[in-house]
Amino acid sequence: MKIKYELIKNDNKARYGRLITNHGTYETPMFMPVGTLANVKMLTPEELKDVHSAVILSNTYHLWLRPGEDIVKKAGGLHKFMNYDGPILTDSGGFQVFSLAKNKKKDITEEGVHFKSHIDGKNLFLTPELSIEIQNKLDSDIAMSFDECIPYPASYEYAKESTERTLRWAKRGKDVFNNENQSLFGIVQGGEYQDLREYSAKKTVEIGFDGYSIGGTSVGEDKKTMYKMIDDAIRYLPIDKPRYLMGVGDPTDLLEGVERGVDMFDCVLPTRLARHANAFTKHGKINLKNAKYKEDFTPIDECDCYTCTHYTKAYIRHLFVANEGLGGRLLSIHNIRFLIKMMEDMRNAIKNDKFLEYKNEFMKKYLSK
Amino acid sequence: MKIKYELIKNDNKARYGRLITNHGTYETPMFMPVGTLANVKMLTPEELKDVHSAVILSNTYHLWLRPGEDIVKKAGGLHKFMNYDGPILTDSGGFQVFSLAKNKKKDITEEGVHFKSHIDGKNLFLTPELSIEIQNKLDSDIAMSFDECIPYPASYEYAKESTERTLRWAKRGKDVFNNENQSLFGIVQGGEYQDLREYSAKKTVEIGFDGYSIGGTSVGEDKKTMYKMIDDAIRYLPIDKPRYLMGVGDPTDLLEGVERGVDMFDCVLPTRLARHANAFTKHGKINLKNAKYKEDFTPIDECDCYTCTHYTKAYIRHLFVANEGLGGRLLSIHNIRFLIKMMEDMRNAIKNDKFLEYKNEFMKKYLSK
Repeated sequence: MKIKYELIKNDNKARYGRLITNHGTYETPMFMPVGTLANVKMLTPEELKDVHSAVILSNTYHLWLRPGEDIVKKAGGLHKFMNYDGPILTDSGGFQVFSLAKNKKKDITEEGVHFKSHIDGKNLFLTPELSIEIQNKLDSDIAMSFDECIPYPASYEYAKESTERTLRWAKRGKDVFNNENQSLFGIVQGGEYQDLREYSAKKTVEIGFDGYSIGGTSVGEDKKTMYKMIDDAIRYLPIDKPRYLMGVGDPTDLLEGVERGVDMFDCVLPTRLARHANAFTKHGKINLKNAKYKEDFTPIDECDCYTCTHYTKAYIRHLFVANEGLGGRLLSIHNIRFLIKMMEDMRNAIKNDKFLEYKNEFMKKYLSK
Repeated sequence: MKIKYELIKNDNKARYGRLITNHGTYETPMFMPVGTLANVKMLTPEELKDVHSAVILSNTYHLWLRPGEDIVKKAGGLHKFMNYDGPILTDSGGFQVFSLAKNKKKDITEEGVHFKSHIDGKNLFLTPELSIEIQNKLDSDIAMSFDECIPYPASYEYAKESTERTLRWAKRGKDVFNNENQSLFGIVQGGEYQDLREYSAKKTVEIGFDGYSIGGTSVGEDKKTMYKMIDDAIRYLPIDKPRYLMGVGDPTDLLEGVERGVDMFDCVLPTRLARHANAFTKHGKINLKNAKYKEDFTPIDECDCYTCTHYTKAYIRHLFVANEGLGGRLLSIHNIRFLIKMMEDMRNAIKNDKFLEYKNEFMKKYLSK
């Protein structure tokens, strides 16, 4: 079965809806934690469920290299391999090819991308067909089309050429797609150019996918440009399909995204920040290594997560100062829960036509320091 | 309240008993996981309970340096600080001074030991009184006397001098001990010399403690010597007090120790091995990085732990090959459970007068490869 999206209620452009998958039905808008290598770093699936995670992400490029999609397939697919019975979304590898390719050298041809492995420098060649074939084998719930993530800034000519190629790649990927229990999303590109975003969105919708991603953001552009890139794409997307803003997880960006009608977000931010001792709080980010937490025997935040209900800032600081991995694990739990709780609060706000109120209140506190 | 030990049943010298603490009553013989820096690396207290941990260890020397015993005291003691409501045993720091002191340079005087911090090379001075004072503040259930761990080999003269000094230190520590909810163990030293072991054991018992540790093993001596060092100490220890063999956790050594009447063991082995991809199995240790596990979709061992009931060797191998911390976490759970399950099996064997039978059967399988 393909995923289904049901729009339940709008509050202006913000959408409260429902995503029906082969691994459960979940409310949107939602934040999806990233499990690059078939695990969300340091955490078990049970811990992800404890913080009310729904869809989690995994990375086609990484799993292609290690352990290889054939091993995952032999294990019975990604869910079984990693012991997660919730929905899994795999990206296409497109973004990683552009961000991780050794020395960032790559050769983009019509057929695909030649580049070097970030692990051992080995020559690799990824094509739209291969990306889909790998994802079909991984057997995630949602697969992504192979795209080029256009750098920022990029010339109009380059952005146009790339956008058109990504459309051809999307079509090629769809043509070879072969997994009836998996859904396929198209990705809108177009760089920072309004007309290219419109063109990319319309043409991607024309090809027809189970959902639509907004790509090419969070690549160095300023916030205003990023929000405009979302606006310039999202208005052309059908209301009966989920919209997924890729790689975005900063709390303020989540609010701006939801306000514009985005349903799904993913980002490594909560776990990456956690490993560097940073925690989200309602009053902004804090770094637990700070000496002022030495004797602070209160939790990180008013929060219902395992970390905040069991540990103090002083203890977590101690773990980081002493270089103990448990610190990153505890903060990962908190940071993911923080973003997921934000989404719960946003959904409630939308239900009550109070999204803007919620957003303004959150922003005021979060940016107060 | 001080801890109490009740001997329930002997099977030859092997003892089945009960340890009554302020944080619960537990059966012996038992294996105690090590949480050096107020956490068993990567694991939560809930996970320790899941594998049926009872007493866990923490390290006075490490906590003295980070975060400092005063912070732990302000947090309400070690249990509250680290969120563990089972019993905690703290060592005296003696062993760490000898194994971790920067460049292993140390100056042992009658008063105490001058040495350099393993973290920043700072000059430190630890005395029997200070070790006890720190442990009183940490408020563990069981504290250890400050001792010198005699290197192996050592001359008779050196071992004699050191053993006598350790006895004086034990007395000094007991004299300043000031925590009525904490118990204090004496440590038998004496190096590899039978008469010194006897002397140390008898004199330590004369001073009088709530339990007795057998120290100075696992410092490079061969197995035969180690077992003799246990024999030469344990025969002089009172039957109504627990006997604790320090720093020993190899499965075969646990069996040899229990056979000789040891009640308690601790070792970093299960967690350290885990971080290096090694797992205990009934058929010996295996390394999960081995290519032969690439497509092995069976659990590590026939085992009731979370890891073995949820994950395959192929998945855990993938985590290690991809350098994902979850691998070490999952193997830590398994390895600790393995040793704790061994102790459960040994207790059952003792109850049924079948200890030797169990031991021989275990050894046959474990050493079969």
